[in-house]
Amino acid sequence: MIFDPNQRQNNRSARISMALFRMTQAIKKMTQLESDAAGFTPIQIQALLFCLHTRSDAATVGNFAHAIGTTHVTAVKVINGLVQKELINKAAKLEDRRVTLLQLTSEGQLAAAKLEQWGQSLEDLLLTIPEETLASLELGLGSVIAAMQQEGHVVVAEPCLGCIHFHPNAREGSEPHYCGLVQKHLSNEASLKECPEHTSSEGV
Amino acid sequence: MIFDPNQRQNNRSARISMALFRMTQAIKKMTQLESDAAGFTPIQIQALLFCLHTRSDAATVGNFAHAIGTTHVTAVKVINGLVQKELINKAAKLEDRRVTLLQLTSEGQLAAAKLEQWGQSLEDLLLTIPEETLASLELGLGSVIAAMQQEGHVVVAEPCLGCIHFHPNAREGSEPHYCGLVQKHLSNEASLKECPEHTSSEGV
Ligand code: SF4
Ligand code: SF4
Repeated sequence: MIFDPNQRQNNRSARISMALFRMTQAIKKMTQLESDAAGFTPIQIQALLFCLHTRSDAATVGNFAHAIGTTHVTAVKVINGLVQKELINKAAKLEDRRVTLLQLTSEGQLAAAKLEQWGQSLEDLLLTIPEETLASLELGLGSVIAAMQQEGHVVVAEPCLGCIHFHPNAREGSEPHYCGLVQKHLSNEASLKECPEHTSSEGV
Repeated sequence: MIFDPNQRQNNRSARISMALFRMTQAIKKMTQLESDAAGFTPIQIQALLFCLHTRSDAATVGNFAHAIGTTHVTAVKVINGLVQKELINKAAKLEDRRVTLLQLTSEGQLAAAKLEQWGQSLEDLLLTIPEETLASLELGLGSVIAAMQQEGHVVVAEPCLGCIHFHPNAREGSEPHYCGLVQKHLSNEASLKECPEHTSSEGV
């Protein structure tokens, strides 16, 4: 009953749902304005940023579809559009040629680097809010996102630090870290990229 | 820099921005599933619920466009689609015939009533989170939405209760309440509808 204003009055979950819902509208609007300025659609921007920040062997079409909560078909369409614009390359994965990996072209790298400021208007807006309020907001949001993640509504991709599968500095050399899930050694650079399988050690 | 995972580590505003952004993705996905089940697009559902819950003389196309953060052109298209399905009627406002008011047809009333559960999956998810966490989340979200509202990124439509313009029970009769902004008397029913001009007395 989140859309019935009189039901909301005595129902905190409904009030918060409505607040979150309003926020999605506002964020959609804010990012749309920034996207228009950048000359890409929001979903194209998400694709470029996904390729920029995801560990290269995890940058698949399937993971992109999950990351933005869309169907595989939609994800493929977006990616193909960016392949045509020569911003993204597709390549078969060495270990498993059925899997397609996405890579930014050098032009794509440039485009993505320029998009690093995308979302800035939201960040700027938060800077006007007192630290203390932000701290409790962050805790609350963390709980909601954990619940959403558990239900499979959202993918929380993060770097290796803080992941239960991460064994930092397991050996010497250029790939010192080890991931117990992927069962591979990782370079420092790879460990700093986003991983869709990141499993936070907090709250476990 | 909200999309750069390593920048986020030491930047709370960026982390919260990312959390909010992830949440918009999850909510989009959750409401999409519910919309598919209802046989309408999410924006059609928002239009029907807007007509159901907004005070009749404020249910204009312009207010609907603002409410969902879209352009007038898009809003008109959605409304016209629902007019064709005979779920919504358009009528010129008595006081100002240039303004078009939106009304649910009796069929539209039925359709909208069935949509009252839309958003339920989000509300259900919040019910799994401890009361205390929800309380601080609500406070934090309130601050963010107030800031978004100030920047014009979101419309917070609420009933008259708690509005600085509201003079409840200003006289006897069927329209006992008075609104100092619209400068009109209001029935009890009208005062319980959502008003896009609601100005919260909290935080003023
Ligand atoms: S599962 Fe964890 S340790 Fe393994 S690559 Fe992903 S984030 Fe790193
Ligand atoms: S401005 Fe305030 S008092 Fe007037 S109709 Fe809107 S909510 Fe009610």
